[in-house]
Amino acid sequence: MTAMKTRTGVKTSAPSPLFSLPVLERFESDPGSVQRSVVGILGGMGPEATADFYLKLVRATPAARDQEHLRVLIWSDPTIPDRTEALLTHGADPTPALIAGARLLKKAGAGMLAVPCNTAHAFLKDVQAEVDIPVIHMIQETAEYVQQLSPSVQKVGLLSTTGTQKAGLYQSWLNRKGVTVITPDSARQDLVMDSIHAIKAGRSAAAVRPLFTEAALDLIGAGAQAIIGGCTEVPVGLSGNDIPVPFIDPAEILAAAVVRRVLGAK
Amino acid sequence: MTAMKTRTGVKTSAPSPLFSLPVLERFESDPGSVQRSVVGILGGMGPEATADFYLKLVRATPAARDQEHLRVLIWSDPTIPDRTEALLTHGADPTPALIAGARLLKKAGAGMLAVPCNTAHAFLKDVQAEVDIPVIHMIQETAEYVQQLSPSVQKVGLLSTTGTQKAGLYQSWLNRKGVTVITPDSARQDLVMDSIHAIKAGRSAAAVRPLFTEAALDLIGAGAQAIIGGCTEVPVGLSGNDIPVPFIDPAEILAAAVVRRVLGAK
Repeated sequence: MTAMKTRTGVKTSAPSPLFSLPVLERFESDPGSVQRSVVGILGGMGPEATADFYLKLVRATPAARDQEHLRVLIWSDPTIPDRTEALLTHGADPTPALIAGARLLKKAGAGMLAVPCNTAHAFLKDVQAEVDIPVIHMIQETAEYVQQLSPSVQKVGLLSTTGTQKAGLYQSWLNRKGVTVITPDSARQDLVMDSIHAIKAGRSAAAVRPLFTEAALDLIGAGAQAIIGGCTEVPVGLSGNDIPVPFIDPAEILAAAVVRRVLGAK
Repeated sequence: MTAMKTRTGVKTSAPSPLFSLPVLERFESDPGSVQRSVVGILGGMGPEATADFYLKLVRATPAARDQEHLRVLIWSDPTIPDRTEALLTHGADPTPALIAGARLLKKAGAGMLAVPCNTAHAFLKDVQAEVDIPVIHMIQETAEYVQQLSPSVQKVGLLSTTGTQKAGLYQSWLNRKGVTVITPDSARQDLVMDSIHAIKAGRSAAAVRPLFTEAALDLIGAGAQAIIGGCTEVPVGLSGNDIPVPFIDPAEILAAAVVRRVLGAK
């Protein structure tokens, strides 16, 4: 986690021009039209990961009081069809629900979107095509982050859903940056997927920590110089304290990217 | 916390009629018009408390997989003027911003509203008058919960903002149920308020725990048979493990009340 703190810990003291507007003027206009963008979070995949992501966004925001935090609109729709099932077993396509959610957020005033679900990123191209506000891409942001790690990393281990693994989301973004992605073998991956489902079913972090840790250590033994917690449920049950290499939490990277975009720090 | 678990832990296995609808049919209609209500959360006061409340709502929901969780729309607007300042020092009135937020949530499909901020409840009557969807009242729900505690409670201690304390929110709801509310003296209350601000500024729970604990023990020494964490920031830094009497978290009670309403269990 040491390396990550450097980036997510970036603080800016730039004052928001919004704060000087009178309250009524702000609320008479569409929330999306004011200078500081409203952040739209398309979530619910799963709901606990969405709450966790929002907390990460709050903690990534430089603020000394409530009024300095970002305005955020969250559409948390856990009924969106399962992403992994859609990718692997011809389950219902989540795309229409994702597009409907993105449109709802845009219409309600969101100026950009974040989708705190790795597997959903397999469907994001179609979502981005349907809304004219930027969708901040968690996997792209993570690949850029990995590329900037120092000392440099040539091989990362990925703990994710089987859907994210098979869709090759991290592989395609990281390979073009010269980074190899290794993943658990099929038997171990089934156990990782079971643990992700266990978190979604409300099991405690402690219950899945040993399995996630063992899967990570396996990948480290096979040469991984960092581990990506590539499903929003993984960082619920695994942290940098559990393993001897950097643990990369894409949700934390997405939160920092959103803050940079809104505050114009980058 | 033992007593609370009984109520918040109520599980229902009633299947949602929503799950049998095809995805497209659901999304072609207004989200608010389907049988299972969309929960609107009017939050941001503060933002961390809103994330915490959403997590409590997720954990209060009986669900074995993502798709069984509630659909939730959160408008988190931390720029809403400070509620305590409005009540005590003629600060800007938060009512217009609260009404605008409630209308936004209603328009986007919310079928009911929850406001996870105790002090904001001083302004909720005007908000409820402006939207024709129910606003679940956290303080009313908490008063009903306290009345049902066994063994029965005649005197509770309140740790809250100075705004909530001076507005008499808990006092008026609890007195009519025959329960007396006691609060810290003015010097101690200033320290409680400072700790609430410290949490809002991102200080850790550990930093404020000793002060919250001491304030609670004071009230227990003065006869309080239970402690109400009557500001959403208080349960961030104080738990039932810190004190020898039941610790009542109104956000947890509100979460359980929302789940009961949506699932029709009560």
